[in-house]
Amino acid sequence: MLLQQAYETVRNRTTAICAPLKTEDYVVQPVVDVSPPKWHLGHTTWFFETFILLPHAAGYTAFDPQYNFVFNSYYETVGARVIRTDRGNLSRPAVEDILRYRQYVDEAMQLLLQQELTPDLQALITLGLHHEEQHQELLYTDIKYILGHNPLFPPYSEHMPLPDTITNNSGDTWLNMKAGIYNIGFAGEGFCFDNELGRHKVYLSDFALSTHLVTNGEYLDFIQSGGYQDFSYWHAEGWDWVRQNQVTMPMYWYNISGQWMHYTWQGLQPLLPDTPLAHISYYEAAAYAAWKGYRLPTEFEWEAAAPQLAWGQRWEWTESAYLPYPGFTKAAGAIGEYNGKFMISQMVLRGGSEVTSPHHSRITYRNFFHPALRWQFTGIRLAR
Amino acid sequence: MLLQQAYETVRNRTTAICAPLKTEDYVVQPVVDVSPPKWHLGHTTWFFETFILLPHAAGYTAFDPQYNFVFNSYYETVGARVIRTDRGNLSRPAVEDILRYRQYVDEAMQLLLQQELTPDLQALITLGLHHEEQHQELLYTDIKYILGHNPLFPPYSEHMPLPDTITNNSGDTWLNMKAGIYNIGFAGEGFCFDNELGRHKVYLSDFALSTHLVTNGEYLDFIQSGGYQDFSYWHAEGWDWVRQNQVTMPMYWYNISGQWMHYTWQGLQPLLPDTPLAHISYYEAAAYAAWKGYRLPTEFEWEAAAPQLAWGQRWEWTESAYLPYPGFTKAAGAIGEYNGKFMISQMVLRGGSEVTSPHHSRITYRNFFHPALRWQFTGIRLAR
Amino acid sequence: MLLQQAYETVRNRTTAICAPLKTEDYVVQPVVDVSPPKWHLGHTTWFFETFILLPHAAGYTAFDPQYNFVFNSYYETVGARVIRTDRGNLSRPAVEDILRYRQYVDEAMQLLLQQELTPDLQALITLGLHHEEQHQELLYTDIKYILGHNPLFPPYSEHMPLPDTITNNSGDTWLNMKAGIYNIGFAGEGFCFDNELGRHKVYLSDFALSTHLVTNGEYLDFIQSGGYQDFSYWHAEGWDWVRQNQVTMPMYWYNISGQWMHYTWQGLQPLLPDTPLAHISYYEAAAYAAWKGYRLPTEFEWEAAAPQLAWGQRWEWTESAYLPYPGFTKAAGAIGEYNGKFMISQMVLRGGSEVTSPHHSRITYRNFFHPALRWQFTGIRLAR
Amino acid sequence: MLLQQAYETVRNRTTAICAPLKTEDYVVQPVVDVSPPKWHLGHTTWFFETFILLPHAAGYTAFDPQYNFVFNSYYETVGARVIRTDRGNLSRPAVEDILRYRQYVDEAMQLLLQQELTPDLQALITLGLHHEEQHQELLYTDIKYILGHNPLFPPYSEHMPLPDTITNNSGDTWLNMKAGIYNIGFAGEGFCFDNELGRHKVYLSDFALSTHLVTNGEYLDFIQSGGYQDFSYWHAEGWDWVRQNQVTMPMYWYNISGQWMHYTWQGLQPLLPDTPLAHISYYEAAAYAAWKGYRLPTEFEWEAAAPQLAWGQRWEWTESAYLPYPGFTKAAGAIGEYNGKFMISQMVLRGGSEVTSPHHSRITYRNFFHPALRWQFTGIRLAR
Repeated sequence: MLLQQAYETVRNRTTAICAPLKTEDYVVQPVVDVSPPKWHLGHTTWFFETFILLPHAAGYTAFDPQYNFVFNSYYETVGARVIRTDRGNLSRPAVEDILRYRQYVDEAMQLLLQQELTPDLQALITLGLHHEEQHQELLYTDIKYILGHNPLFPPYSEHMPLPDTITNNSGDTWLNMKAGIYNIGFAGEGFCFDNELGRHKVYLSDFALSTHLVTNGEYLDFIQSGGYQDFSYWHAEGWDWVRQNQVTMPMYWYNISGQWMHYTWQGLQPLLPDTPLAHISYYEAAAYAAWKGYRLPTEFEWEAAAPQLAWGQRWEWTESAYLPYPGFTKAAGAIGEYNGKFMISQMVLRGGSEVTSPHHSRITYRNFFHPALRWQFTGIRLAR
Repeated sequence: MLLQQAYETVRNRTTAICAPLKTEDYVVQPVVDVSPPKWHLGHTTWFFETFILLPHAAGYTAFDPQYNFVFNSYYETVGARVIRTDRGNLSRPAVEDILRYRQYVDEAMQLLLQQELTPDLQALITLGLHHEEQHQELLYTDIKYILGHNPLFPPYSEHMPLPDTITNNSGDTWLNMKAGIYNIGFAGEGFCFDNELGRHKVYLSDFALSTHLVTNGEYLDFIQSGGYQDFSYWHAEGWDWVRQNQVTMPMYWYNISGQWMHYTWQGLQPLLPDTPLAHISYYEAAAYAAWKGYRLPTEFEWEAAAPQLAWGQRWEWTESAYLPYPGFTKAAGAIGEYNGKFMISQMVLRGGSEVTSPHHSRITYRNFFHPALRWQFTGIRLAR
Repeated sequence: MLLQQAYETVRNRTTAICAPLKTEDYVVQPVVDVSPPKWHLGHTTWFFETFILLPHAAGYTAFDPQYNFVFNSYYETVGARVIRTDRGNLSRPAVEDILRYRQYVDEAMQLLLQQELTPDLQALITLGLHHEEQHQELLYTDIKYILGHNPLFPPYSEHMPLPDTITNNSGDTWLNMKAGIYNIGFAGEGFCFDNELGRHKVYLSDFALSTHLVTNGEYLDFIQSGGYQDFSYWHAEGWDWVRQNQVTMPMYWYNISGQWMHYTWQGLQPLLPDTPLAHISYYEAAAYAAWKGYRLPTEFEWEAAAPQLAWGQRWEWTESAYLPYPGFTKAAGAIGEYNGKFMISQMVLRGGSEVTSPHHSRITYRNFFHPALRWQFTGIRLAR
Repeated sequence: MLLQQAYETVRNRTTAICAPLKTEDYVVQPVVDVSPPKWHLGHTTWFFETFILLPHAAGYTAFDPQYNFVFNSYYETVGARVIRTDRGNLSRPAVEDILRYRQYVDEAMQLLLQQELTPDLQALITLGLHHEEQHQELLYTDIKYILGHNPLFPPYSEHMPLPDTITNNSGDTWLNMKAGIYNIGFAGEGFCFDNELGRHKVYLSDFALSTHLVTNGEYLDFIQSGGYQDFSYWHAEGWDWVRQNQVTMPMYWYNISGQWMHYTWQGLQPLLPDTPLAHISYYEAAAYAAWKGYRLPTEFEWEAAAPQLAWGQRWEWTESAYLPYPGFTKAAGAIGEYNGKFMISQMVLRGGSEVTSPHHSRITYRNFFHPALRWQFTGIRLAR
């Protein structure tokens, strides 16, 4: 009963996010990391068809056997995948076909959900819903990229709230934490991802975290004091990235005839100095911290301090690489590919953002991205 | 009066070509040489707005000043262009916006066409119509590419005629031509492009052209006798192209479980052996000719023999590079960029194809493409 | 006095490593990560000229002011660097010029070393010697790459010892370690790099490390059981690496007409099954461990267990990313660039190898490389 | 007897060209079009071993069977070739080995040349000598590239003559040629390449060629009047080339603190305004001609006018693509690959240069390069 409601809520939220789009907006893939919105609509549906309905719903027939080829993501177990860079070339299936696909799968799922389900199957459906909620955040960030890189700068929706303002942005209030052994990782009931499991002890030295996130105005100081021109603040790899891509400001920022602007859900707007900075790479986060004379927190420091912090506005880059916790084990089969295989060359982000789905902000949640990526709502909290 | 009718006819034909498409099909750009259909719709309209209406229609206001940036092609004189590879990233302007743009410009053009126009202006409008007719052929070939490279192989339209059949495909009937001086280039009245002008004498030795085009079945013999595995038939550059791209058959051909298929306007179909071969590169055309012990004609041989040949089904690769005729001069201004600046690294094609627009097949017409390109309806006529 | 001797010993060892080379071998750079041996000869000399002699030796004149441009590596503080990929294009300075450069700098250094030096200057010279010893190991691995990728497979020297044999390679002896707090990082006197400093507490859960390294024979089992064809053992990034590079075996291995061979210091030789495996990427190390049902150790586990292990034959990939220790601080100026700026996107290796210089194997020593690199003597020790 | 002398003369001239080099200079390959000098030494020798000695000299044993793999160029018939970009990675065979290879082959050739040889074999040896003379010119241009792109700008030799001075560079003297039929292609006795054969009639309209080559000073006017900033002079492909490579002057030119310099055989020197311009691409040649209001000659105009012109200082870009003459046929076997397979995407150059070998300047000689290449001694003669 609860699962039925949860299913309906999550599935409807996905299509609601797409409601302000024009059909054309569902199709394009401007860069490899951004997927076309219609692909997200299909892929999340494919998950339920492939892992729930085909193996567990008696008499279920696939909507279209070709869709496995089109909407498979990285699940190598399941079949040949569409090369990721090709997604933006596919005009078909059309949006209306994918919406019919969603309806077809949703009807079969509602039938299934009326039956008595094993705990394992319930857990798998719950995983499917969490998977879809992760794609909801990607839908937001991918839509922002698609519209925000169009020369016409079309707004997404007038009804999105502006981000919060940080009133005290002096940067000088710190939460001091004592050295000692802390317990890290998920405990208790409810859903979590496999990468949060294996609650374990970590020894931390004395440290302090800033009580607020870095603001646009603070980051502008870094720009205006030459931060992008001085290699000494940067990792060698970050400096190469700055120069090869001629980076001089965060993603979505523009300096138009001397005025600082940024692309927002409402279109191009003057830069708001007191809102939390967003859309910076790990390299930029680390360089800013070095310029300030501080550093980024580790994910363990963050988790230890989080109960005493206000957080959830930005995904906060940490100085921790995304690696398995002690005792991490992969689940068997395709589900086992969910997280473990990405545990290389990525950095952990903690917190959440203004577009994070419900249930995807918790103190033990481990988000992760390559250090160069900026299209997520990434931000900075300083440590010392 | 005639120009008014011509304008309406040409402009309507463009939108009619797009009628079978879904909105999503207008948006994608699977490879750099293929443009999104909505870009063709906008770009041909932009031509009239920029070169006719803005300078010559009193009181005309641009539909949207940003569109110059979006729909400019290669006309460096007019302003910064959108980098060509980015076209497929632009979800906006939406198709409906572009159709309103077309209507807005068409209404202004119809008003202008009711006035007395100078011969120069009439010539410029005529050029604009020929420009749009060239894009009509590109619309067909780009649509074929977009649908024919989709894993679902959607048909374009049931109403497109199948290509003609060549009944006598023995390949052994030749038109013999005598050595002597021939006149090459456009003469007479009516429209032609600047690259056809400068009618001039060319001396040709004795030669003979095949009276028919190479068929699918004949080309299949080349494949099955190992033509793609024997470098001795290929130019060095062509052989590199074969190996780097692992080419083993013409574009749109597939060997599915031993059966030869090709993508057509009606979707995936068994290969028709007696229709003229299409969608091969210059390298393949030259290799096929070498395998047969013959060669390709020069564009001068083709033009001299054409009055005595049946032609128009395929753009026939010639052994001539695309170079200026003696006395070629560029027109002043942006119009002068039309043809001359492409006169390097391209090969001439003569004839026409099943999707060539009316008035774009004539004996002096010079089409041209890079030797590796295959998405046009290119074919082979042998010479010796 | 001691420093004078150390200087002479280290500097002579560098040229001795190059003694078996032909002049041509000093020049080439087959891939970007490998530097020409003559560049190593020049760069290590440039370090002493730039950081010691020019600022501290009264009246010293640079050997050739252009050499700063040619031999600078990554020291952004000092001046424009030669783009790294260009090193292999530089036929000049010739080897004989660089040897004269070495002699010129060595003579000036010996004069300086006869004087009373401040502790800071002594420390800087010591750093220069350790820097040169790091390049000695790179000289070995770069020379192996240059000769081992030449189709003639020339031997380096008959006098290099063969690697040790592991007699008990059953893989079933483990060192068990108890959970608790361990101290990590350099302590005591003597030289260490800045990345080892900041001795600090780390809590470790119970764990066990294999007492021996994985052998060639054991790894051959992985190959022959299809390890390179089954994505489930691999990180997603590793699997892409395998397929893009068509990797099917360690670097320097060849299967010639069914016989397994590997390139060694003595040329191409039959594969020795009982010697420790070398020249594998982090991806391969992690995939092998997954196939065995184990994992790689963290660098902290390694350091805690090392006093009870035999180690030093291979650089052992750990599951730890290369990140700063708590309290890590960069030194001021160019020397500060030494390590900190590489602390992103690299994995830590612990141990040492058959070509590691004296003083470059110690329990706290942190080596690091990108996970795809294989030209170092990298190996595997399993953990559980 | 004559052939014996010719053999010795040609072979000695090759090693004499390399005499001023240091060993290191023989090894590097800074760009793909430039080959290491030691490769030229080996490849020309390989030609005689493979095509003359192995099939025709009884009892001859290959010097080293691996050399076929290392020194084969593009002769697909003969065996797997070394990928061209890899040549600069090969430190072995060493220069001394290759010189022994030359001596070994030369001794066997001298023995063979003392015997009675068939006319076919004599022709093949003659082709081998012409092949080597072509590589002599490449040796010069490749050496210039290797030294001229080294930051130390080492001179090649003090003994190379400076290029000639053009005293009357007013550019206003023209040779007028009458319309009519001209005979094009090689006639008479002596050696020629297959691409010159098939003497045939060509009809030319009235035309005129400049009596002198464009000078450095004249080209400087083009630069200083903004020629590299105005797309209207350029082919579309040329303009892309200018912008992608940020080209602003000919190869080997430098503007150092306001003074124009160029790299010459004697090192870096002030630009000589009255010497013929060299090292420009076809794009630059065509753009210069367009800026002057003229054009480049066709290869047929050039050949018709050449008897009345002074020529031979520069390879003069023509407006003709490199295509087969009527009746061109490839020889059978590997020799047949010599020229025909390059007849695509290249432009013809006529004339010769200061480093052209004896017997490689004649009125019918057809040189050819891709339009972007500049490392040859290419120049400009205007036509109208």
